[in-house]
Amino acid sequence: MLDTQSAWLDETDLQSARDRLPIVYVDAVPVRVDAQGQVTEVGLLLRSLPDGSISRAVVSGRVLYGERVRDALLRHLEKDLGSMALPSIPTSPQPFTVVEYFPDPTITGFHDPRQHAVSLAFIVPINGDCAPSQSALDLIWVTPTEAVSLAFQSQMSGGQDRLVRMALAHCGLLA
Amino acid sequence: MLDTQSAWLDETDLQSARDRLPIVYVDAVPVRVDAQGQVTEVGLLLRSLPDGSISRAVVSGRVLYGERVRDALLRHLEKDLGSMALPSIPTSPQPFTVVEYFPDPTITGFHDPRQHAVSLAFIVPINGDCAPSQSALDLIWVTPTEAVSLAFQSQMSGGQDRLVRMALAHCGLLA
Amino acid sequence: MLDTQSAWLDETDLQSARDRLPIVYVDAVPVRVDAQGQVTEVGLLLRSLPDGSISRAVVSGRVLYGERVRDALLRHLEKDLGSMALPSIPTSPQPFTVVEYFPDPTITGFHDPRQHAVSLAFIVPINGDCAPSQSALDLIWVTPTEAVSLAFQSQMSGGQDRLVRMALAHCGLLA
Amino acid sequence: MLDTQSAWLDETDLQSARDRLPIVYVDAVPVRVDAQGQVTEVGLLLRSLPDGSISRAVVSGRVLYGERVRDALLRHLEKDLGSMALPSIPTSPQPFTVVEYFPDPTITGFHDPRQHAVSLAFIVPINGDCAPSQSALDLIWVTPTEAVSLAFQSQMSGGQDRLVRMALAHCGLLA
Repeated sequence: MLDTQSAWLDETDLQSARDRLPIVYVDAVPVRVDAQGQVTEVGLLLRSLPDGSISRAVVSGRVLYGERVRDALLRHLEKDLGSMALPSIPTSPQPFTVVEYFPDPTITGFHDPRQHAVSLAFIVPINGDCAPSQSALDLIWVTPTEAVSLAFQSQMSGGQDRLVRMALAHCGLLA
Repeated sequence: MLDTQSAWLDETDLQSARDRLPIVYVDAVPVRVDAQGQVTEVGLLLRSLPDGSISRAVVSGRVLYGERVRDALLRHLEKDLGSMALPSIPTSPQPFTVVEYFPDPTITGFHDPRQHAVSLAFIVPINGDCAPSQSALDLIWVTPTEAVSLAFQSQMSGGQDRLVRMALAHCGLLA
Repeated sequence: MLDTQSAWLDETDLQSARDRLPIVYVDAVPVRVDAQGQVTEVGLLLRSLPDGSISRAVVSGRVLYGERVRDALLRHLEKDLGSMALPSIPTSPQPFTVVEYFPDPTITGFHDPRQHAVSLAFIVPINGDCAPSQSALDLIWVTPTEAVSLAFQSQMSGGQDRLVRMALAHCGLLA
Repeated sequence: MLDTQSAWLDETDLQSARDRLPIVYVDAVPVRVDAQGQVTEVGLLLRSLPDGSISRAVVSGRVLYGERVRDALLRHLEKDLGSMALPSIPTSPQPFTVVEYFPDPTITGFHDPRQHAVSLAFIVPINGDCAPSQSALDLIWVTPTEAVSLAFQSQMSGGQDRLVRMALAHCGLLA
């Protein structure tokens, strides 16, 4: 394992890199499932997004230098949901989709004013107890039907609403 | 839910259908995973295969009339691994591959002398305790490296060796 | 190659099998793409559906005994779009989703009054000229935005509207 | 579209970024297919790899700031195979796998001495005429069986042999 700590960027360097290179991200859509694996609930955080808004959002974050994608997934899930969340990280590195966030919101509709990020998106069953922490202000669990309702979709900015619908489509649950 | 019971076929009718129609199957590759979702072990049953051989094999079986694919997966996993196996059935219906079994072994290399079967193949993490039952004579857990070793691959007939390697390739673990 | 011809079922036998076994199907969403592979148009047939309605629909049909899934895809695409359609059949047998059609419309929302069908769904770029034939009354090409508009979605029954949205979600194009 | 040109890094800056951040890559396995989409041949370049070796390899390269993944795929395919290659870029952003290249060859077995790269890997049918150019010294087309033969696998370093086998496994063609 590389020493990821020493390779972290300070804020100035990170800003400089963000102006020049696409940044590797992971997105994790937390879900509760029944014994047959069917999604019964979707977890939505309440978070300050980079654009300054307070928005419902899924778990998301950067992959560090020297870090495996699956280690980044676990780290961000524990950071946002707490260390007792017991997520089922996927066995395969194949994401269900790749989300391309751009500073220009018109390119893909996925918007991040800070950077161009290429994000591997996964659906992650959560088996334990969640305690939203750090950057997350709140966490709620809603049914797939509620998650795509206008009430919740309108609370998600930057394309988060669309990402949730894409995740549910992948699970066969798009209304 | 349809009444799957009343729609089961008796053996004569099933044989007749098997001569005329492709049959819907599921294959489940049971795995043990670590906290990061990395596969640490693959579960291999010892089973009498349709061709009369005793072979190492993954969990496999028919989807019944009126039965959801995810219900069939759970049923066959519990039948072969016991009711305490606690499998994590996938959230998405997208299989990692589709295996086409033919009576003629030269078409795809996947061979079933009884029938033409189209099988949706999934990788399924097992979280509980396994007690092989019914048709399975034995269950062993081997590392990914052991699973693709000549010693074990030579014990798998009908293409089961290849299916295990395809599953490991999908998990990024093909040697 | 098995002799698929001799294994075809006459209508009575097929009806009997349909009452007892899930039937293997393929669904193909025909698309036009640009040089970067981005979907620019979706092809929608006008067809008499099993429920008696005239509906906008994608290409769909049964896999025959002894037939490879990719041969069935090509056969149904040529049957519905003509022999000059030049479809790009996927290199991988992994479908983007699996659609479960039931006689009971409440189980999955995908409805086929005739049968329980398990359908492997693929997105298929069309490179040639199309001439709708046989069962298809008409073929139109619409933009992704039009395809998910209320005008067209309301013309699709049996879950075809949802299948088109799932295909667009998989292509990153869900609105 | 962002102005990708102005955002390119000079060599010193790129080296600095490579020491600090994972770099976004695409890998494309070029294939020839028949009318049913079955892979008949795999294209292997002969290339100077970062480790100084001359190796058989697939198409690979960086995603630039402001560039869509599908635009990067097309750019690298045209750079290595020529402008008349007519590749079928996938309709979906879902890669068949994600390859994690590390300077330390023991982490994943995928090795790049220059950098930590996270690469989205796609299988890309080639429909036109190829003329290897720039960094590629040579291009040959081999059958799937030849591609996984010891003769060719031993000519591929850095994990390229494994990537080709993973691509063939995804196409159902792993021997």
